Amino acid sequence: MSKANPHYQKITREYIFPIIDKELEQVREEHPNKKILNFGVGDIVHPLKPSIVKALTKACTEMGEKVVGYGPSTGYHFLKKAVIDSEYGKYGIKASEVFISEGTINDCVNLLDILDVDNEIAIPDPAYPSYLDAAIMDGRTRAAKKGNDFPDIIYLPCTEETGFLPRPPKKGCDVIYLCSPHNPTGMALTRSDYEQWIDYAKEHDALIILDAAYECFIRSDNVPKSIYEVKGAKDVAIELRTFSKSAGFTGLRCAYSIVPEAIKAKLGKEDVSLHKLWTQRQNAKSNGVSYPVQRAAEASLSKKAHEETTEDIEDYLIQTKRLKDGLRDHGQTCYGGDDCPYIWWKCPEGVSSWDFFRHLLNELHLLCIPGAGFGKRGEGYVRLSGFTNEEAAKEAVKRLKKL
Amino acid sequence: MSKANPHYQKITREYIFPIIDKELEQVREEHPNKKILNFGVGDIVHPLKPSIVKALTKACTEMGEKVVGYGPSTGYHFLKKAVIDSEYGKYGIKASEVFISEGTINDCVNLLDILDVDNEIAIPDPAYPSYLDAAIMDGRTRAAKKGNDFPDIIYLPCTEETGFLPRPPKKGCDVIYLCSPHNPTGMALTRSDYEQWIDYAKEHDALIILDAAYECFIRSDNVPKSIYEVKGAKDVAIELRTFSKSAGFTGLRCAYSIVPEAIKAKLGKEDVSLHKLWTQRQNAKSNGVSYPVQRAAEASLSKKAHEETTEDIEDYLIQTKRLKDGLRDHGQTCYGGDDCPYIWWKCPEGVSSWDFFRHLLNELHLLCIPGAGFGKRGEGYVRLSGFTNEEAAKEAVKRLKKL
Repeated sequence: MSKANPHYQKITREYIFPIIDKELEQVREEHPNKKILNFGVGDIVHPLKPSIVKALTKACTEMGEKVVGYGPSTGYHFLKKAVIDSEYGKYGIKASEVFISEGTINDCVNLLDILDVDNEIAIPDPAYPSYLDAAIMDGRTRAAKKGNDFPDIIYLPCTEETGFLPRPPKKGCDVIYLCSPHNPTGMALTRSDYEQWIDYAKEHDALIILDAAYECFIRSDNVPKSIYEVKGAKDVAIELRTFSKSAGFTGLRCAYSIVPEAIKAKLGKEDVSLHKLWTQRQNAKSNGVSYPVQRAAEASLSKKAHEETTEDIEDYLIQTKRLKDGLRDHGQTCYGGDDCPYIWWKCPEGVSSWDFFRHLLNELHLLCIPGAGFGKRGEGYVRLSGFTNEEAAKEAVKRLKKL
Repeated sequence: MSKANPHYQKITREYIFPIIDKELEQVREEHPNKKILNFGVGDIVHPLKPSIVKALTKACTEMGEKVVGYGPSTGYHFLKKAVIDSEYGKYGIKASEVFISEGTINDCVNLLDILDVDNEIAIPDPAYPSYLDAAIMDGRTRAAKKGNDFPDIIYLPCTEETGFLPRPPKKGCDVIYLCSPHNPTGMALTRSDYEQWIDYAKEHDALIILDAAYECFIRSDNVPKSIYEVKGAKDVAIELRTFSKSAGFTGLRCAYSIVPEAIKAKLGKEDVSLHKLWTQRQNAKSNGVSYPVQRAAEASLSKKAHEETTEDIEDYLIQTKRLKDGLRDHGQTCYGGDDCPYIWWKCPEGVSSWDFFRHLLNELHLLCIPGAGFGKRGEGYVRLSGFTNEEAAKEAVKRLKKL
């Protein structure tokens, strides 16, 4: 008889975002006249920019005029070249080291395919839920006893003690997920933080998978835009970027992974290039990303589009600052929000993140995400997203008086 | 130290399509003045149809005017509804049983995620290479000794003895890949063939994964358009469809899987719904398909677009018939091509499929795919694709005189 993957059973929590949707729906029914301000899921609030729409529609029209068939599984050269020319070339990355995909979420989970199940994996906590869920689904850890950590995962606490960022653990591990600027705490790794991680990775021959989905929000001088700005990174780190936030592509789906050829992993007694395995994986398991979407992504890297999208990015940062200032003015404790549109808001003493989330939703009609939804070490905080507009941010600050 | 997935080593053959590209490139360099006719990779030769381009560009323009953010991981309801209204509703399938994805290749390999590695998997031979490659990469079989079958895979021969279609094996198995109309042999399973498979699946509590990528080419009365036309299928079969061939979407990327809620698999001592696991997988591992692509797919199911795309489908079938008649007129033995744009052409006695492929490429300048590239039991045949235009098909038939 066909047998289901038994590891799915180990995931006992429900996926956070659908639960939030349900709670939101319930409050909407109970308070039909009250406007709920949504600072929950980090989704864009601005339409696509004109020069991106232009390239997108042009490519669509083109597909009605000539045959555009299967593209390369790892992406079109024109887009890889644009990635190199716009930034990565200066770090010494080559076009062949760029792999185009449908999203950073896909890259985060699909990269596990090329890695042995025996690798010890380190995952930040709190973090975006898919890193851990994918590791569990893949059978990379034994089940957790109720409320406990998964026994074969190395948790990297992102708490007050660690400055809300993952720090190298004392013991060695094989594969490390990093996310910087970090979702959900809104903090970002500095140059010296990266240097420590690269030293650690070299010492333990470990692989770093850096989710850099929020890179476009980086404004601090000591926070590198790319890990490859830091010496030695090309030997140990895969970097993931997306057009979702930098160009408003959440509904279009396009991202890329940088997999330098120098990165090796053990295969029996030999070393093997992960670049080679990733190529093999993508060729066998995907037919690549939609042609017009890749054309739009290419256009988003042009100077003109960059000016247009930077307006939105700046606006998100302004609203984030507005919310953060408002919180502080009302005596609240919060972190993040400088290089990232997320604010990590401390719950009142003794109040759980779910209770605070419900209080904010029911009383202030503000939707945020309870920190515990991102992992046990997110307890005691809620995440407030700055993907919002001026009106909503101002209104939210007003409502804070009712706290 | 980070360790690579050791199962990748077990794949000793190179992926077929890139090899073909290399051989083609070489012949082009040697004979720069000779026009090579491409009957190789089954890619479309007609541009997107006007009403599809219209819906596509409209959705793109819309994204510049209003915010279209993250869509549902399993696809928009409007597209699921269109799939139900245009066909699947009449088989009793519900919109919630339709899952939108980037391609049938993705569904074929990703479905393995929700199935235990201990399942015994049956795979047709010859077949599209990704079914086997994905099973190997996942660690679902021990390595094969040189030239031998993989020991833990149940091969379903599609040879002269089986009518070039997979038949239920004597022994039981847990998961069965079927592809009908079958790539590469070009033959299609009839109603009574499906009845036998459904009986077999029920007897062994096995799951059928049917790749129906070429469904739109079915013209024979006794060949069902969907497995759900046959009684009992909803308890045992997942059906995969794509817009790649039916609407010329190879460069746009959109497909869907039908996963009926009734299908169960064993999980410890209990039965679990694969629909539930597939939903969980797609939520955790994907953010769905590009919005404008889903709008284009929806449009392709309209009456008007269907008339437009049917012209192309009919044209491919006409060219396939032209090629097949030409081959037979020249005394060649070939199969398939009635409900599928692929012709399974028998090599001359004692000539290997790679030798015949090279002979056709070098002497007649016809590109096809050697049968052995689809598996050991494809030896002795080449696949000729009818995705071509009238001029090329006529020219090919002329060149057959030189055989």
